[in-house]
Amino acid sequence: MDAAEGIHEGNERFKQAVREADNVALPLLYTRGAQILPPNGETVRDSESIAEFWRAFFDLGITEARPVTHEVIPMGEYALEVGEYSVLSHDEVVDRGKIMVLWKHEDGVWKMHRDTWNSSVPLPET
Amino acid sequence: MDAAEGIHEGNERFKQAVREADNVALPLLYTRGAQILPPNGETVRDSESIAEFWRAFFDLGITEARPVTHEVIPMGEYALEVGEYSVLSHDEVVDRGKIMVLWKHEDGVWKMHRDTWNSSVPLPET
Repeated sequence: MDAAEGIHEGNERFKQAVREADNVALPLLYTRGAQILPPNGETVRDSESIAEFWRAFFDLGITEARPVTHEVIPMGEYALEVGEYSVLSHDEVVDRGKIMVLWKHEDGVWKMHRDTWNSSVPLPET
Repeated sequence: MDAAEGIHEGNERFKQAVREADNVALPLLYTRGAQILPPNGETVRDSESIAEFWRAFFDLGITEARPVTHEVIPMGEYALEVGEYSVLSHDEVVDRGKIMVLWKHEDGVWKMHRDTWNSSVPLPET
């Protein structure tokens, strides 16, 4: 399976895991040694912390996350995905922005190795 | 020059260009076809828009940006940098966060190809 197909499959599994609020499945979509670099927080490492991160995300009332891939740059066992996302709470879009994910081929599957994003919504004027 | 050295040199040039508010030098640190994915804004493409982006950044009163590299993953003509940054206005840290930059070897130099970051500072409670 090439990188673009593997990333597509990984994203389909990711969307399903979020819809099912399944924070057992979510860490399995990440490599050993993966890092999440979330906005407005510190870097998240190791699969227990990754499960915890997504649990907190569900606690915010998020019911759906929709990554859309614009570009895949294949680089051997790695591939960079650049795209956009929207995040929903019961059919209402609560955030939208940009994603940049380094995927890695590990144990025969493409998994997220370095995962970051940021909102495209302007900050409120202060 | 290997990727880690090339990225170090690119970051030194970047820091100098920011200190000098030099938005002629800044676009030259990016590849042809580069993209900046800034927080709270849309993707920035082409060198004129990149110059414009940094001009707006200087207009906010930013006088210094300090990227710190934690990790370089070399992948042939590409390399991914993961690290942290702080942004200063006249010696006061006004933001700090995480960076993820895909560098590309182009015209004999390592340049930024996909550049994104987000703040590690929690959002104020609403």
